[in-house]
Order: sequence, then structure tokens, then C-alpha cells
Amino acid sequence: MKRRLSIEEYTEGVLSGNRIILSKAITLVESRRPADRLLAMQLLERLLPHTGKSYRIGITGVPGVGKSTFIEAFGLYLIEQGHRPAVLAIDPSSPKTKGSILGDKTRMERLSMQAEAFIRPSASGRSLGGVAHATREAMLLCEAAGFDVVIIETVGVGQSEVLVKSMVDFFLLLMLAGAGDELQGIKKGIMEMADALVINKADGDNQRAAEQAKRAYENALHLFRAPENGWFPPVLTCSALYNQGMAEIWHTLLRFREQTRQNGYWEKNRQNQRLEWLRFALQEHLLEAFYRHEAVKNKLSALEEAVLHNRLLPQHAAHMLVDLFLKQQTEA
Amino acid sequence: MKRRLSIEEYTEGVLSGNRIILSKAITLVESRRPADRLLAMQLLERLLPHTGKSYRIGITGVPGVGKSTFIEAFGLYLIEQGHRPAVLAIDPSSPKTKGSILGDKTRMERLSMQAEAFIRPSASGRSLGGVAHATREAMLLCEAAGFDVVIIETVGVGQSEVLVKSMVDFFLLLMLAGAGDELQGIKKGIMEMADALVINKADGDNQRAAEQAKRAYENALHLFRAPENGWFPPVLTCSALYNQGMAEIWHTLLRFREQTRQNGYWEKNRQNQRLEWLRFALQEHLLEAFYRHEAVKNKLSALEEAVLHNRLLPQHAAHMLVDLFLKQQTEA
Repeated sequence: MKRRLSIEEYTEGVLSGNRIILSKAITLVESRRPADRLLAMQLLERLLPHTGKSYRIGITGVPGVGKSTFIEAFGLYLIEQGHRPAVLAIDPSSPKTKGSILGDKTRMERLSMQAEAFIRPSASGRSLGGVAHATREAMLLCEAAGFDVVIIETVGVGQSEVLVKSMVDFFLLLMLAGAGDELQGIKKGIMEMADALVINKADGDNQRAAEQAKRAYENALHLFRAPENGWFPPVLTCSALYNQGMAEIWHTLLRFREQTRQNGYWEKNRQNQRLEWLRFALQEHLLEAFYRHEAVKNKLSALEEAVLHNRLLPQHAAHMLVDLFLKQQTEA
Repeated sequence: MKRRLSIEEYTEGVLSGNRIILSKAITLVESRRPADRLLAMQLLERLLPHTGKSYRIGITGVPGVGKSTFIEAFGLYLIEQGHRPAVLAIDPSSPKTKGSILGDKTRMERLSMQAEAFIRPSASGRSLGGVAHATREAMLLCEAAGFDVVIIETVGVGQSEVLVKSMVDFFLLLMLAGAGDELQGIKKGIMEMADALVINKADGDNQRAAEQAKRAYENALHLFRAPENGWFPPVLTCSALYNQGMAEIWHTLLRFREQTRQNGYWEKNRQNQRLEWLRFALQEHLLEAFYRHEAVKNKLSALEEAVLHNRLLPQHAAHMLVDLFLKQQTEA
């Protein structure tokens, strides 16, 4: 089916929860082609009133912590409770390695077979900024399609966590027990962002170590300052493999939502996230217009060369280029 | 003396190493007044051929580690060796606390009395970006005034380290022994940026603890990947209070310079830093022009309000504002 869908077909398809059209719509918002981008914006504009009603959850953890198994178990639990989870994966495959960090796409087989679930790995090979942009929009599409829990998964390599934190309501950090130096294995900055720590693989011989780790993490979390939202991040244990601990985790999330809705943080956070997205988009658009500007393009490398060899002050080169950009605009 | 100095007076004063005029010139590059900024750029442009010849050293460490005492001892050692050190302090005093984090300005009394030294706390109350901008330019002024070692001191609170790293040749992290959990006290990301770790207060009863900490840090550093510049950051000990260890530290820095000049990293790093500064300045200038644009100013808060309440897509608002900015440019 090569025919392009019309804006009406996209709109109706997404709103009726059609997963094939939802997939196509996500591909559309991920596209960099100008025509696609215009259509994507029109589509999102139409769907906007139908967005915002899901519980947006970010899940991260180092490779090997069992993120896929956890999300599958958690997603199946949510379906049992009558929810419709969507899973988006942020996959900043680096230009260095080319391939996808997430590896094989056969993950979460059981969850992906459920009619109530939707799983979408992100387009790979794009900048982190591009990924963030497309993931935010994909999230809105999932909400418009009626998914009431949107899980955003990241690979836990650092930078992407800050981005995910800036688009979710709740940020969950998955960890492992037993390594001994576990506190050093994860960046402190990421621990500070978490709304809950969940120690996975708390089963069999590992149970005692998990309990010990739980206490160690609880102590470590006490070192951080009181959070702005009045919520003290709990440390939980679970076994995704044996479907244990899912109810407690979900109840923790519900408690968080109730508490932060009451103290106003929930909505304040959403509003801040929208403004942050606006600032991000403004900067992106401005720089894009700047760097594709003919006069700027013609002059840039010569000025860079002069700066590189200390013949020209960077501030001065910047002034010259910005002047060029703004003046030439007049003649366009 | 209220009279404004002419560009010639500034130029000659700085080039002759006049510390009073150097001070005034730094105040000039820190100023936000448009007329001052133009003059500052002209001055820097003239001085540019006389810059770049110093050893640029960044020094950081948590409060209490003894940064001032260390820099004083190190600076006095450098003067003994025939050098002329300049010390610039990055002081991102937050709008919250108003006051200066660096506290009293009576620090480094002995060093500040030396004719061969120059000490300058940064202007406070500005954004981190503003601080970076002014500090880079102050560094160039010190170089033009003949200071051959420029030390940039930061307060070790996190973000400012990334900035300092982006403007120096060598990044030195001061630490303390004995706290037991010292490895957790400093952010891992900052340790990864360091070209050397120096354990201060290795004197008296503290000597054994310092040696232990040295070994612990050496082990910790081995966990990091091999550095791009081929330099494996050593761990040194010193006692700034008793002037011990300064020669070894300086020889380490000389060895670093020799080694990275040979493998080409030294100059490559400087070039990258200049390009980074250009990118930073471009973004700053563009956003500044954007936000002071009349049509943008008039429309911004209404669009922000619409985005805040989910009535308008952030992407869409960004498009509208950037279009407004670029179109209105035509009529200006």
C-alpha cells in the first residue's frame, strides 16, 4: 500500500485506535521530509484535544537489568487491570556502532501479541534531539489512539535519561542487586531523577541480596535533598521473570499520581514540560533556518577556518554570520 | 577616574602588563552594555595575535578541599620558577543566594601581593553562559598582558566544570582523603574529565589516609576508558599548607604539555575549543536577536499561554514565532 493516507484517514484511523494507522502516523512524525513534517504537524494539531490523558512513565536501567522482561510483565499486569499500555523505545543508536543498541526486535513477544498493547521501537540513527522530538509526538499519537499508559524505555546510557525525564510523569529506575559496587555502577545524577527505584531479579538465591540492596539504596536516597514535588522515591523489589511485585509497583505509581495531583505538582510538571518543548523547538527551528541559509552556508567554513587558527575571535565570527543571516533575510 | 579609556589606552595598557588597565579591560568584557560590548570586541580583536601562549589550567574541587590555599601555594611556586600566573575565579553565584559562593575576597593574600601575579574573582550574578563568555575573554586579556599561566578556579558544583573543561588545556581535580566514602562525594562525570587528581592536605596524621586514597582513586580511574589524548590521569598528593608537592604537580603538567604537543592533541583541543566557542556564540546571538525582536516579544506570551494549556502544539508555536521573526526582518 504505497498510496499516501489523507489527513482525514490518519485522524480517523488514530482516533479509532487502529494500530496499523497509528504505526504509519508515527512513521510520519519521524520523517524529516518537509511535506511529511507539514502533514505531521496538521495531524498532531487535530489530535491535540485528545492527548494528555495517559500516565506517562519513563523506564531506564543499565543493559542487562532486564528492562524488556520487566516491561512485558508490567504491561501484561496493566492489561489485566483493564489498561491499554503503549511502549515506545528511545534508541539512540550511535553513528559509531550503526546498529541498534536494543538489539533484536523479537523482544516482548507475549505483550506484543495482546490486542490491548502497542509496542514501537523508535527510528534509529537519528540525533538525540531528533529522537526526543519524534518520541514526544509519538506519545501524543498513542494517547489519541486511546492508550492510557505510555511507557518510554531508554537504554540507560546517560544523556537520553534527561530527555525522557523531561517528557514523563513518573521516572522509574530499574536496578540489580548483588554486584557489590552497584551504587557506583549507575550515575548518581540518574538516581536523583528517579521517582522510584525497582530492584529486579529479586528471586531464588538472589532474594537476600535484593533486600540488602534495597536497604543500601534507601540509605543512598536519603542523602539527596527533599524533592520539589514532596514525593520521597521508594525502593521496591520485583521479579519480572516470575511476575512478582507488579501490583505494588503500579500502586506506587497510582499513589504518586494522587499525591502530586493534590499538591499541584502533576499539572505544573506537565506545563513546564510543554514550555520546555517550546524552547527546544524554537532553538531547533532557528538554528535550522540559520544553517540552511545560503549566505551563511557560503561564509561559514571560511570563518570557521579563521577561528580555528586564531585569526578571528569566535564572538566576532558569530556577529558577522548572524548579521549576514538577518540582513539577507531582507532581500529574500 | 570616571573618564572612559580609549581603545588605544586599553590596548597599550594591557600589552604593557598594566594590572589596573587589565582589571578595567576585564570589567569591560564583562559588561552587558551594547557600547561596551562593541568596544570589548574591538579590543579583543586587536589583542588576538598576542593570545594563546599561556598554559590554561582549570582547578576544581568541592568546598572545603582547600582550593584557595592550593592555588596560592601553587602560584607562589610558579613565580619562583620565573612564571607569571593569573587566577580567574568562576563564581556562578545563584540568583537564589545572591551572595558570592566564594565568600570573602581576602583569600590568597600572599599571592595577590606579588607583582608577578594577577587575581580576579569573576563578576557575580550572571548566568553560567555569561560567566563562561566573560571568563574566556578575560583569559585572552591576561594572556595579552603577558601572564603565561592562567588558572581558572571553579567552585565544584557540577555544571561549571563542563564549561571550564571546554576552555583549558589541563583540568586538575583537588580532593581530600579520609572521608571514607570519598568516591561517592564527587560526581563520576567530573572525575572522568580530570587530567590529574591531586589529594590535598596530605600532611601530619592525614598522610597515611592520603596514600590510601591515592591508591583507591588510582583503582577507580582504571575503570574509565583510555583517554583520547593518550594521557592516563595520575593521582598525586600534596600539602598546600606546607608547600609540599608543588614541583611534582608542575612537572606533571609540563609532561602533559610535552606529550600532547607531540601527539597533536594539544593543538587539536585548542582548535576544538575555539569552534565550540563559535557555536556557543552563534546560538547566543541568534536567540538574543530573536527574543528582543518586537513582533516576537508581542506574540510570545500569548503563544506560551496556549502551549501551557495544551491548546497549541509547541512545534506549531515555534514555527509561528520563527516565521514571524524571519518575515518581519524583511520589513525592518
